[in-house]
Amino acid sequence: MKDNFVRNAAGREVLTEINGLDATPFMGVGRYRPEGRKTAPPLASCADYPADGNKVVADLKTALENAGLRDGMTISTHHHFRNGDLVANMLFDIAADMGVRDLRWFPSASFPCHAPLIRHLDDGVIHHIEGSMNGPLGDYASAGRMRGLGVLRSHGGRYQAIQDGEVHIDIAVIAAPTSDPFGNCNGVSGPSACGGLGFALADSQYADRVIVVTDNLVPFPCVPWQIMGNHVDSVVVIDSIGDPAKIVSGTTNITRSPDRLLIAERTARFVEAAGILRDGFSFQAGAGGTSLAFAVFLRDMMRAGGIKARFVRGGSTQYLVDMLEEGLTDYILDGQTFDLAGVRSMRENPQHIHTNPFVSYNYHNKGNISSMVDVVVLGATEVDVHFNANVVTHSDGRLLHGIGGWQNCLFSKCTILPIPGFRDRIPVIVDRVTTLCGPGELIDVIVTERGIAINPLRQDLIERTRNSGLPIRPIEEIKHEVESLCGGSPATPRFRDNAIAAVKWVDGTVLDIVRQLE
Amino acid sequence: MKDNFVRNAAGREVLTEINGLDATPFMGVGRYRPEGRKTAPPLASCADYPADGNKVVADLKTALENAGLRDGMTISTHHHFRNGDLVANMLFDIAADMGVRDLRWFPSASFPCHAPLIRHLDDGVIHHIEGSMNGPLGDYASAGRMRGLGVLRSHGGRYQAIQDGEVHIDIAVIAAPTSDPFGNCNGVSGPSACGGLGFALADSQYADRVIVVTDNLVPFPCVPWQIMGNHVDSVVVIDSIGDPAKIVSGTTNITRSPDRLLIAERTARFVEAAGILRDGFSFQAGAGGTSLAFAVFLRDMMRAGGIKARFVRGGSTQYLVDMLEEGLTDYILDGQTFDLAGVRSMRENPQHIHTNPFVSYNYHNKGNISSMVDVVVLGATEVDVHFNANVVTHSDGRLLHGIGGWQNCLFSKCTILPIPGFRDRIPVIVDRVTTLCGPGELIDVIVTERGIAINPLRQDLIERTRNSGLPIRPIEEIKHEVESLCGGSPATPRFRDNAIAAVKWVDGTVLDIVRQLE
Repeated sequence: MKDNFVRNAAGREVLTEINGLDATPFMGVGRYRPEGRKTAPPLASCADYPADGNKVVADLKTALENAGLRDGMTISTHHHFRNGDLVANMLFDIAADMGVRDLRWFPSASFPCHAPLIRHLDDGVIHHIEGSMNGPLGDYASAGRMRGLGVLRSHGGRYQAIQDGEVHIDIAVIAAPTSDPFGNCNGVSGPSACGGLGFALADSQYADRVIVVTDNLVPFPCVPWQIMGNHVDSVVVIDSIGDPAKIVSGTTNITRSPDRLLIAERTARFVEAAGILRDGFSFQAGAGGTSLAFAVFLRDMMRAGGIKARFVRGGSTQYLVDMLEEGLTDYILDGQTFDLAGVRSMRENPQHIHTNPFVSYNYHNKGNISSMVDVVVLGATEVDVHFNANVVTHSDGRLLHGIGGWQNCLFSKCTILPIPGFRDRIPVIVDRVTTLCGPGELIDVIVTERGIAINPLRQDLIERTRNSGLPIRPIEEIKHEVESLCGGSPATPRFRDNAIAAVKWVDGTVLDIVRQLE
Repeated sequence: MKDNFVRNAAGREVLTEINGLDATPFMGVGRYRPEGRKTAPPLASCADYPADGNKVVADLKTALENAGLRDGMTISTHHHFRNGDLVANMLFDIAADMGVRDLRWFPSASFPCHAPLIRHLDDGVIHHIEGSMNGPLGDYASAGRMRGLGVLRSHGGRYQAIQDGEVHIDIAVIAAPTSDPFGNCNGVSGPSACGGLGFALADSQYADRVIVVTDNLVPFPCVPWQIMGNHVDSVVVIDSIGDPAKIVSGTTNITRSPDRLLIAERTARFVEAAGILRDGFSFQAGAGGTSLAFAVFLRDMMRAGGIKARFVRGGSTQYLVDMLEEGLTDYILDGQTFDLAGVRSMRENPQHIHTNPFVSYNYHNKGNISSMVDVVVLGATEVDVHFNANVVTHSDGRLLHGIGGWQNCLFSKCTILPIPGFRDRIPVIVDRVTTLCGPGELIDVIVTERGIAINPLRQDLIERTRNSGLPIRPIEEIKHEVESLCGGSPATPRFRDNAIAAVKWVDGTVLDIVRQLE
């Protein structure tokens, strides 16, 4: 172990300094207690803002100049447009034109559409990215080409880091599908409607300066004001903030793979057998093909049993919207919409509630929604025999995914990972996950096409499903079976010593690092 | 002038120290600029709150004990129940039983129903009150019987004081008509429904500890969550938090006085003559008889002219709700509901928007709603010939009213005070207001039964209404006429030297003081 590495409570070698700041190694779930008070933005005076509420300025460059953009600042953006975002690239092109350097880009996530920013990482405009790096930017970091260390946080961890003062945002740039001249804005209306803007909430509350960029300006008041204009310094109107075709995925479809359908069905049957499927229950499932299939199987069971959920957590899709409209749930509590049905429902249905990482996920809080959810269904790239799981790297060591709300969701009353036994002939259950993203003590059940493994810590679940007829097996047994099929365990990736990214836990401590590939 | 008094920019002698803390004298409208950052509450961890979200404790005493109630703390409550509140009295009775002393009570306002608390002011449980003191508590303070100095703030000033760290709340006790076990709560449902809970927003955001008291517990999630459970430490369920008959006034009726009706009609005609009444305009009027009559006259003009407002600011009543439902306004932006029609509308109509002092009134903000309102109609106890106005004391010097949103509303584009020339044979237009609450430069028009006076600073309004046929006269002329009718100007009240209350301006500076009556 090198000098600047220590072994944390999860047995992972982590850094005690990240990008020049002290970092606390992971101490165990719920062990680290924050001290002191939340951070806070500068005091403002209405005397310094237009009395008529019109904060519209000529263009983004003017807004950035007014906000005092200069070298070394931290600039944040959100990812509600996913792979259709047009604003982040525009923003850093302007910064480059202004001759600004060494910016820290702090997106809630980055996507392949942001690949053009590699140019500004190379030319020094952007020093490094703190935030999920999906696809090409992750690859860029994995190759050791980024100057600073990537810092990967969950949605809740990002809110926590901002709120705790761990990350100070100088300028937040919030792309908004609809805004009024005062800066009240939302994502439910307009040509670039994406649903909610919750991932930008912390940015609006805590950044020194806040710029709203919109392509749909409406008269005051813009209702609902998901982001409050009272936090906003200026408003910029441009032609288009996002590519509508890519903002919401048109391809959130149920899996057609027979194996994945089997996994989804088993997951739903497990939920039923464990006694979770009862009137007033709640669940969260993602927008992947298997998760959607799970939701559909669950829906059919709810219909058959006359069971109604109290709430369903979104990522919303047509499937969840149908359930709400059919009366199978009282509410959708939604952090982001994944299709146009979700956008429409959030706009029109008062039972489709817009949530944000503060209420849902922030761990440095007086409780949050995630731990109240009865069952959550999540993905993983790898799981080990102690139920530890990885979502950011592949078994080949490449950093290709963000954490999203995944870590936060682990706090649900029952966390289930429905995963295939192998992908591309590479086993998914391993001896040791390449990158630790979720401690095994929070992961209760693994559902594969070869059987269901229950975490020995959950004797209650083991007891309740004992006579269910479900293929419940020790995780080691499933692992060996898969390995014999695939010809052994995955090859260990070859890393250099140096870290290229840190994986934060929900409390801001360092859970693991990602190293550079050889 | 005594040692600890200085003359401020409004020419008023004010204190430079209030209850042991330095105070800044008023420097002029928009002159004082706050420095530094907002205050912030303590960091919390979900590890210290129940994972299932159930924060219900046995009773209010337990909640106060858990919150660490002790001598000298600041305890806040809100006044959305107005004269029907049952919680504040209960709270201080419990504190008395616990043997706690010298508390600072920081209500958003107090009402005659709180007269029983005089016992706890006398016996030392409460040291002093900071907040509006309507009726008996104002009388109590005026008589010099309260130990500390009363501090009178507007709704926006209260938010500003909390946000700026000027007032640190140790424990906020938030009475909520509906809550879930997590502490998400609102005022639109339940047997004690009062409409919004916006006056408790700052308390929930900034207090060290937050207790929700409800008489209507519903399963999570309580939607809408006007107060977010993520700010809440514990939830207490009691039989009744308020007397529904007194929570909303059943007597918000249009004035029947011919003089007041004349004033109301003239006010509406002035608004029309000044060109303010046009499509997309906005207005705010209170719930008093004259204001309601004004709104009705305005409504008739809007109907006749085919004019639609973009928004109307509430205090909402049946009259505003009718306008919304008739399509005469796109939105009601509502800070508090004054009758059951308002409560119902806020609960059911998505165009009836719940606002709070942060978005509406807080002056240490990046703008707020108040300055965007085209015309506001307000009351006053006294006005002087420079258009300075008083709302807290009567001409006899007694402190009988709070400031409410009055100061904040002065920032509208046109502020009109429709007032009678005299009340009980005492002239309302005076040489010098007993207590200065609003600087004359922000008050544009006085409408009386004897004529309309326009502030000379508003040459634009004078110009626009020159040929309106309205009885526009110099304010001095109206004053002399009233005085000749009443037999002279009001007798000056006889005060002692010592202050019993301070009147804060919206920026936290001291605008005036109220002295003890002889």
